Amino acid sequence: MKNNQQNVLIIGAGLCGSLLALRMGQRGYNVNVYEMRPDLRKTDISAGRSINLAFSDRGNKGIKLVGLEKKVQELCIPMNGRMLHDKDGNTFLSNYSGRTHEYINSISRGGLNALLLDEAEKHPNVKIHFNKKCKSVDFENTTALFKDYLTKDEFIEDADCIIATDGAGSALRKSYYLGKKFLFSFSQNYLTHGYKELAILPDKNGGYKTYKNALHIWPRGEFMVIALPNLDGSFTVTLFLSYDEGEYNFNNLTTPERVTEFFKKEFPDALELMPNLVDDFFENPTAPLGTVKCTPWHYKGNTLLMGDSAHAIVPFYGQGMNASFEDVVEFDAILENHDGDWEKVFTEFSKTRKKDTDAIADLAIDNFHEMKDHVANPLFQKKRKIEMALENHFPNTYFSKYSLVTFNEEIGYREAMLQGRAQDKAILNMLVDRDINTPYDESNIDELHQILEKIQNETKAVLEDDKIAGLH
Amino acid sequence: MKNNQQNVLIIGAGLCGSLLALRMGQRGYNVNVYEMRPDLRKTDISAGRSINLAFSDRGNKGIKLVGLEKKVQELCIPMNGRMLHDKDGNTFLSNYSGRTHEYINSISRGGLNALLLDEAEKHPNVKIHFNKKCKSVDFENTTALFKDYLTKDEFIEDADCIIATDGAGSALRKSYYLGKKFLFSFSQNYLTHGYKELAILPDKNGGYKTYKNALHIWPRGEFMVIALPNLDGSFTVTLFLSYDEGEYNFNNLTTPERVTEFFKKEFPDALELMPNLVDDFFENPTAPLGTVKCTPWHYKGNTLLMGDSAHAIVPFYGQGMNASFEDVVEFDAILENHDGDWEKVFTEFSKTRKKDTDAIADLAIDNFHEMKDHVANPLFQKKRKIEMALENHFPNTYFSKYSLVTFNEEIGYREAMLQGRAQDKAILNMLVDRDINTPYDESNIDELHQILEKIQNETKAVLEDDKIAGLH
Repeated sequence: MKNNQQNVLIIGAGLCGSLLALRMGQRGYNVNVYEMRPDLRKTDISAGRSINLAFSDRGNKGIKLVGLEKKVQELCIPMNGRMLHDKDGNTFLSNYSGRTHEYINSISRGGLNALLLDEAEKHPNVKIHFNKKCKSVDFENTTALFKDYLTKDEFIEDADCIIATDGAGSALRKSYYLGKKFLFSFSQNYLTHGYKELAILPDKNGGYKTYKNALHIWPRGEFMVIALPNLDGSFTVTLFLSYDEGEYNFNNLTTPERVTEFFKKEFPDALELMPNLVDDFFENPTAPLGTVKCTPWHYKGNTLLMGDSAHAIVPFYGQGMNASFEDVVEFDAILENHDGDWEKVFTEFSKTRKKDTDAIADLAIDNFHEMKDHVANPLFQKKRKIEMALENHFPNTYFSKYSLVTFNEEIGYREAMLQGRAQDKAILNMLVDRDINTPYDESNIDELHQILEKIQNETKAVLEDDKIAGLH
Repeated sequence: MKNNQQNVLIIGAGLCGSLLALRMGQRGYNVNVYEMRPDLRKTDISAGRSINLAFSDRGNKGIKLVGLEKKVQELCIPMNGRMLHDKDGNTFLSNYSGRTHEYINSISRGGLNALLLDEAEKHPNVKIHFNKKCKSVDFENTTALFKDYLTKDEFIEDADCIIATDGAGSALRKSYYLGKKFLFSFSQNYLTHGYKELAILPDKNGGYKTYKNALHIWPRGEFMVIALPNLDGSFTVTLFLSYDEGEYNFNNLTTPERVTEFFKKEFPDALELMPNLVDDFFENPTAPLGTVKCTPWHYKGNTLLMGDSAHAIVPFYGQGMNASFEDVVEFDAILENHDGDWEKVFTEFSKTRKKDTDAIADLAIDNFHEMKDHVANPLFQKKRKIEMALENHFPNTYFSKYSLVTFNEEIGYREAMLQGRAQDKAILNMLVDRDINTPYDESNIDELHQILEKIQNETKAVLEDDKIAGLH
């Protein structure tokens, strides 16, 4: 290991920053992490509310890298599929995969972050400084300006390199944009919808009021509610709704009566589980849903954006944290090969990684429409049914788009997107054109095998047609 | 006409701003235009160099709207097609359309802008103020802050509404972005390539050194040179080249010897026409190629972005000015229906227009690859040959993507893009799959008609497949 006495400054001790700090600590670098918030292990930042995230195979690669797989598993609640709730309160479980060992997990953001901070701080060469807000980065001189929120002092730190894992509102990215020292391509795109967090509290005995091992969805076409379980028996519930379109929207849900009316009409079974709805609704903020893309991520060997600061995405594929953890894994592999040459490491990382984070950003927006709308569409449901049967009977051969993205962590997001979209297009069109006849006999393996071959051939044709047209 | 005594403030007196000012003047509004540059009719801003643009049917809609068709025609040089130059100096003319009355024009930016300013100023209710730079816009109070470049004074102007036609670096757009008063989606994306303007000067007798009525292209795969004619016998030449990739790039073309070597190797016939090459190369700046998209364009009924300020695009479809003039036409039609209600006008305009300006932005990037590379590709050339034959024999039925975008001004850019891309995909795939057999007999109208029907059916199938897959 070369140059491990180098000083690495990390901006932001969220999930990505704390995993990176831990890994760089394991590699022996002198690591200083500056975080604007107080230490979440000492201060109850989220006001008692459990906020959870989907944790799956790509994220687990990062956790394995630092040897924490078992400790993280203890924080996980498996979710085997989507539990769909219709307006009449009927429920339908749609598995994420036809392979029973494939599922995603609900995990506490705070719990996971605390674990990573604890483990990072076990390394004497890693120091984490809280309440220090980065205001700007001088990327030409590899220094960063901070404000101490407690003393109100401002101070400058320098390092051999600076890595910004400071999220969607990144100070380094802002410095790139405002600096105008190089051509900086940048986009921030908001959906028409915002979100608000609500809660289903545990029952009297501390148990779950609805099925624990699923990601619950109430799909209603133009809006939806989802719920993910927490270890304490509660569910974190999120309403996704337009700011200003449709009969009910965030701008016109201004009274307790109207909010109750909306839930009574659209989500009656959810309302029953949430006597606390109105209080939550008016106490919790409405937040926007944005996607950030940019390039370049690095300035020479001085500075690098990583995680949300480089590629903030909407939450609908449950891949935000997973993508950031995969960043750390890919970064670490490149560092292994080019240790000592930050410019080479940063250049190589940006070059190989960006196509994949662009892809998951686009996939996440696809899934917004899939979750709020398509899951309730009969054609889409037929497709999912066929895919479940194929994954179940041909577990080593067939992988749906969802499986490719979520459970096939050895291929990149971009490859998963291209193959997955082509498969979806092939199956949907074959269903409409009756090239796949339904109903088919699910127990007839020959019939299923014929369907599999048809889908494989048609998928190949879709990809080939696109290639000839120069689309990819 | 209602409310025509309202005060309209226009920021920027470029092509879009001056056409808009003229039209609003014709409608009777009190129009004040503030332009940061000196009056181009009095100051030779471009240092003697003719800079030209492609002017075509969509732009001409705007010129017809204000009754200047004949005057503008006098500034135009028709270009019937692309004159392709290979490395051996062989040339090949590829027409823009199989219909002989369809062509584009080379027009002087300065000449056209001067005409529009002259015509606008004929209206006593239109005032144009030069050397006044807009620094920011207070969109909540409908006021703008200006700096007078001559007196150095700063002053604030207010109006009933403010329309910013101040180009890619728009002050209003910057105020939207920095103001953070609403969710502003915004992107700026740069190509890996930049451009530099050069010139082929007239011959001794003031004549054209190469064929006048074409847009000349020297396509070389990863870079290219183009040339458009000027009325004075010169051509404005543009080199499009990567900043830092490939054997020759802008970053390493640093000596006269290397520049000459590059042109001798890649563009020998162009070099012969440009004894002034080296001087031009080192005198003229290298400029970036960027695309800007954003939304919303308006803030209530107070302010509106129009033209490049709302949607700057790369120049490869020759549609930048045409799109901005079409903005004025569409805006004018909406104003006709909702005169007196600025918020309604601005909302409606943004809603109907953005899908089309997004499409031309994407098409312009497609054409970057088409011009520098595909035009020299045998498969692409086969496609163009078939399309020319179809347009020639079935002039009311078949329209290539280029024709749909450039000569079918009654349909929007988005429709042109969807239909045109589907046609291209259909033809390219049918050629590869030998569903269209070449060579075919061009004089055999039945054979051509069969090909037409095949293309129409396959195009429909492509569009239908995409629709089922939810792609559009």
